[in-house]
Amino acid sequence: MTLKPGTTRVGFIGTGVMGLSMAAHILRAGYPLRVYNRTPARAEPLLREGAEWRSSPGALAADADVVITMVGFPSDVEQVYFGEAGILASAKPGTYLIDMTTSTPSLAQRIHRTAKERHLHALDAPVSGGDVGAREGRLSIMVGGDEADFEAVLSVLQRMGTHIVRQGEAGAGQYTKMCNQIAIASNMIGVCEAIAYAKRAGLDPERVLQSITGGAAGSWSLSQLGPRIIKGDFAPGFYVKHFLKDIRIALSSAEELNLDLPGVRLAQRLYEAIASWGEEDSGTQALFKWYQRQWMAEVGVSSD
Amino acid sequence: MTLKPGTTRVGFIGTGVMGLSMAAHILRAGYPLRVYNRTPARAEPLLREGAEWRSSPGALAADADVVITMVGFPSDVEQVYFGEAGILASAKPGTYLIDMTTSTPSLAQRIHRTAKERHLHALDAPVSGGDVGAREGRLSIMVGGDEADFEAVLSVLQRMGTHIVRQGEAGAGQYTKMCNQIAIASNMIGVCEAIAYAKRAGLDPERVLQSITGGAAGSWSLSQLGPRIIKGDFAPGFYVKHFLKDIRIALSSAEELNLDLPGVRLAQRLYEAIASWGEEDSGTQALFKWYQRQWMAEVGVSSD
Repeated sequence: MTLKPGTTRVGFIGTGVMGLSMAAHILRAGYPLRVYNRTPARAEPLLREGAEWRSSPGALAADADVVITMVGFPSDVEQVYFGEAGILASAKPGTYLIDMTTSTPSLAQRIHRTAKERHLHALDAPVSGGDVGAREGRLSIMVGGDEADFEAVLSVLQRMGTHIVRQGEAGAGQYTKMCNQIAIASNMIGVCEAIAYAKRAGLDPERVLQSITGGAAGSWSLSQLGPRIIKGDFAPGFYVKHFLKDIRIALSSAEELNLDLPGVRLAQRLYEAIASWGEEDSGTQALFKWYQRQWMAEVGVSSD
Repeated sequence: MTLKPGTTRVGFIGTGVMGLSMAAHILRAGYPLRVYNRTPARAEPLLREGAEWRSSPGALAADADVVITMVGFPSDVEQVYFGEAGILASAKPGTYLIDMTTSTPSLAQRIHRTAKERHLHALDAPVSGGDVGAREGRLSIMVGGDEADFEAVLSVLQRMGTHIVRQGEAGAGQYTKMCNQIAIASNMIGVCEAIAYAKRAGLDPERVLQSITGGAAGSWSLSQLGPRIIKGDFAPGFYVKHFLKDIRIALSSAEELNLDLPGVRLAQRLYEAIASWGEEDSGTQALFKWYQRQWMAEVGVSSD
């Protein structure tokens, strides 16, 4: 089977901010596209461009050669794959199933096992690059699963990403995505602490960034999110509530691996604090408010 | 007074790895150079190139228009400035004093105050860029002190660095350097945790770096130190013992500012642990051993 535009039917489940852009690239490349989304209205831009609506994950899977899922939480992944009228119960033998949601490695491995029993080809393929990367088709895609299955779907993945690496067997994509989130978690703490300290010391934080971004303290977060923090711009970017989901997955996965990650545990504590203050829908740079609150409390100003 | 090569006498105190390279740039630019170092043998390469030896910080300061200090710890800075036969007691009015050691902001402010009383011009000007930056004259120099004094010595600083920013009044250079170290402290935790998790999950860590260094998890430490960690190369770079010094300065300074930095506190705890295991003279990437020890303990192998 060769997966070519024109003949290969692609089904896409989950047309949120990321999924909508990703599915559009596939549609525009000429693949007949079927879509399903829990909130149907969100899929409308794709229907207007020629995609066909299907009424359930199962109905979609029964009528596709490749099924791509990009949903919210591991519980959503479990529902669309294992639930009633779900993918695994309905897909025809030989179908490729690609979960691009950031989810747990163990769930990815369970999907792969069950899929294999039913002669289905499952891959886990979470992404990084955010809404901008999705819009521009420049995502980094981290893939776990069988080598042959990876080769088979590569041309489809290439519609969405420019940096696509098979990291290993089933679950390896999710493990790699967790590496990404683990590195970010502690670095966000460092970025916020550096800027908080600069402010408390009476420095001009923008001028501080001029001195430090080019050297050993330099990072994507410092260059991209540092200036937003300084301006008081806490709009997402990447939502606090989604990052907290990833942090929880990382910690539970690390526990399964018998590995203590105190940096991620600290990030969890701080992010849960700001989430409890109503920052779930802010961008991850809102971690700065955990520090800001220290001096706001001092002068009797509420940071809520 | 214009500080020109040929006529401006520069005194340099502290010819360790960094100081030796920095002083050599000044000497080669044509400034008559006097040097002092606690261990005289280390200054010999400069003496062979034409620098003159002075027997104490005070003797050196009495005979220089610009005195540069690049010593080890804040206690060393205090000694060379305030000690018997020290700089402040011996320098002639009008002399410029530039401390490039990474030291405490409060000590920088105290030197500046005392210097002013004696009609001396003190600046704090710590650097980043490491031994390579020092050798290539490409340091980032973060300066605190009076604007006019900064302007006066800029041509001398330009022999050592390419990125020179006056950050504010006395102490601002040290505060900025602490911002740099604070950002690095948590990021090193993130880098080590990401690689430790990758290894525990059975991934190929080099391939993981291929997927994650170009995106939101990217940082200087991940790109530069990540590959060394993977190879088991823990050579310095930047010594654990010096980084611990900086972490302690940052925490004590943050405490003065009434600011809690839990990321730096965690870094202190982890770095103190590896230092107690004999890693003081390793590079900062040896933090990885804190994680590695978890699985070495599991299989009964000592990591010492």
